[in-house]
Amino acid sequence: MSLVVELLSTGDELLTGQVVDTNSTWLMDRLWDLGIMVRRKTLVGDDRDDLAAAVREACGRADAVVMSGGMGPTEDDLTAEVVAGVLGVPLELDEPSLRAVEARFAWMGRVMTPNNVKQARFPRGAVVHPNRFGTAPGFSVAVGRATLTCLPGVPVEFKGLCEEAVLPRLAARLDGAPAARVLKLFGVGESHADQAMRPVMDDPANRGVRFGYRAHFPEVHLKWSVTGPGAEARAAAIEASVRAIFGAAVWGSGKEELAALVVARLTARGERVALAESCTGGLVASLVTAVAGASAALDLGVVAYSNDVKARLLSVPEPLLLAHGAVSEPVARAMAEGARRAAGAAWGLGVTGIAGPTGGTPEKPVGTVHLALAGPGGTEALARHYRGDRERVRRFAAYEALDLLRRALG
Amino acid sequence: MSLVVELLSTGDELLTGQVVDTNSTWLMDRLWDLGIMVRRKTLVGDDRDDLAAAVREACGRADAVVMSGGMGPTEDDLTAEVVAGVLGVPLELDEPSLRAVEARFAWMGRVMTPNNVKQARFPRGAVVHPNRFGTAPGFSVAVGRATLTCLPGVPVEFKGLCEEAVLPRLAARLDGAPAARVLKLFGVGESHADQAMRPVMDDPANRGVRFGYRAHFPEVHLKWSVTGPGAEARAAAIEASVRAIFGAAVWGSGKEELAALVVARLTARGERVALAESCTGGLVASLVTAVAGASAALDLGVVAYSNDVKARLLSVPEPLLLAHGAVSEPVARAMAEGARRAAGAAWGLGVTGIAGPTGGTPEKPVGTVHLALAGPGGTEALARHYRGDRERVRRFAAYEALDLLRRALG
Repeated sequence: MSLVVELLSTGDELLTGQVVDTNSTWLMDRLWDLGIMVRRKTLVGDDRDDLAAAVREACGRADAVVMSGGMGPTEDDLTAEVVAGVLGVPLELDEPSLRAVEARFAWMGRVMTPNNVKQARFPRGAVVHPNRFGTAPGFSVAVGRATLTCLPGVPVEFKGLCEEAVLPRLAARLDGAPAARVLKLFGVGESHADQAMRPVMDDPANRGVRFGYRAHFPEVHLKWSVTGPGAEARAAAIEASVRAIFGAAVWGSGKEELAALVVARLTARGERVALAESCTGGLVASLVTAVAGASAALDLGVVAYSNDVKARLLSVPEPLLLAHGAVSEPVARAMAEGARRAAGAAWGLGVTGIAGPTGGTPEKPVGTVHLALAGPGGTEALARHYRGDRERVRRFAAYEALDLLRRALG
Repeated sequence: MSLVVELLSTGDELLTGQVVDTNSTWLMDRLWDLGIMVRRKTLVGDDRDDLAAAVREACGRADAVVMSGGMGPTEDDLTAEVVAGVLGVPLELDEPSLRAVEARFAWMGRVMTPNNVKQARFPRGAVVHPNRFGTAPGFSVAVGRATLTCLPGVPVEFKGLCEEAVLPRLAARLDGAPAARVLKLFGVGESHADQAMRPVMDDPANRGVRFGYRAHFPEVHLKWSVTGPGAEARAAAIEASVRAIFGAAVWGSGKEELAALVVARLTARGERVALAESCTGGLVASLVTAVAGASAALDLGVVAYSNDVKARLLSVPEPLLLAHGAVSEPVARAMAEGARRAAGAAWGLGVTGIAGPTGGTPEKPVGTVHLALAGPGGTEALARHYRGDRERVRRFAAYEALDLLRRALG
């Protein structure tokens, strides 16, 4: 069967622009993997009447409603009380939950104030979802023909309880386990990807498959979800077609991250990369070192914003800088080679370009970037002309540098 | 008068977790500046019935509804058609809009396909909002007692049209212009800030003032909005109190950014900073170079992940590394001084620490960070113990480094 699912989030902080409701986006993505597109999402503040109306309306339309927030100990936390009111049932103390809340406070070495008892009270008839990620348990209860599940809004708790209590139950209500895949591309634009995917999406063999993409600038992630008999085999066949279409532009799948992949490949080979960055200004280094264990794969990065630093620290010959300018293929090559030599590393990456908003010329407009990779087999170079603002140009160039290394590492 | 405002966003991509609805968060923040807390926000897909129901419901509850998305040329773009259906009026071609769409295509050097005419058709009676940020104009129309404004979902167009057409009209419906302020803090936690603000928030003189904060990790932004007579003076008085409470932890206000502030101050003084980063791994450099014009304030950053690089490129004495370990105050000082010397800069920043998840010891647990700033008057050092994962520790340390320099620049 197909399920109508709605999401409901509560919290004044979500309506003032103070906090972004990332829980919903995350859950929508996870539900999509099950083949479910959320029908409606509603955000309301910590107001009794608004909340009650929103709960009634959502439960009147949907098979399942997942609600986030309002489960804490303060006066603003109204969820359990409002749901009990909608159902016309009392709140009841759940002893195991009370003991769990008490244990949590003991573990944190804090005194439990009386208002925390509130977190162990649920509408009569509710199924309680113990919370091993935080203090407040969640609960599910039938409201009309809908199942309403209420969870705390703290992202790690919300996500943990969704994985444990919500997604498996929804999956069980669907016909067969859906098979969902994500392939991650670099170097292919969204509209190009969309066009190239048409034959796969329009293939009668793939009728009923949900295709989608996730813009994760500057990457493009393609995803599809298949339900029904033979779902795994059908999803795998689509993966083969997509890989055939995009070739080496597909760098990974599932939860893989480009920088982590590069670090893992370098570490497995016992090799390191040294970085020489001009226009990306430390962004490549920052992406690589964000990966836990990056120190095995990188020990040197140089941000060389001036000709002087390029010449002194990276041994870029001054005549090269004068003849070609700092933004040029020869300088990118010399930077990559200089970084490689300075660190005694197997690989050296050089990036030089014009990120903007100023500094462009008719010959070298803003967005012009030269990249080079020096390695055991010599040095290769790439020239790119990115469109967009400083932030986009820098981000594009940084991922291009990682992708250049990824391709070389095979 | 106080206005009930609801937001409505449409687009399947918003319900699949593919795209985050940043437009709403942005508009909520801007409305809050006017003293308006949005009452409800609804997200629905590109479905005629769902959309019509959501429009009817929102317009039945609110004084003003701002809707985003569904204004483009494709079949999925249903907004104008659905609104016309709700009102029972026809769509009518707006000649000036058609000419504007044509001009836009001519300017982009692209052929206008017939489906683009759709973007110039609006429900009879609508006021059209010309769009100088993109192709599709917006429109406002009365639906019952509510004013419904429909805008394109592309963020730059949505925001531009909100600033031009939505916010001034809403402000005009309020009693007097509200005065809104934002002060930006570093080095004060959210819960501490909340506690320290209590006396100001509870002050009877500030009755009716809306206080809020925006978590912008690792910064905290405090904001307040005052309406009614003497709003500007009252807002200014609150600012004075807040500045007195938090002192030098307040680094800026309004739309200021910490890295941009540091770059501006260095540039004004004709000085530069050189960076020596270990645990932050290029994050400080990346924040600084994200600022347009950063090349006037920075020409060298070194990511020194190994002792060898610290010794060779930053001249950190090997005995110091052996005696104290790489994560120590003496090494942070030597890194800052080494970077300053290598670049011939007025300032040198050094950061060394244990970002985790591994590498901690009982004496130096994960989160231990030493920072140093070398300057014309000598070198100062800071030790910090941050809590959280690798991402948090790195981010905290990078902002701490910028803040250390900000304080020194006065």
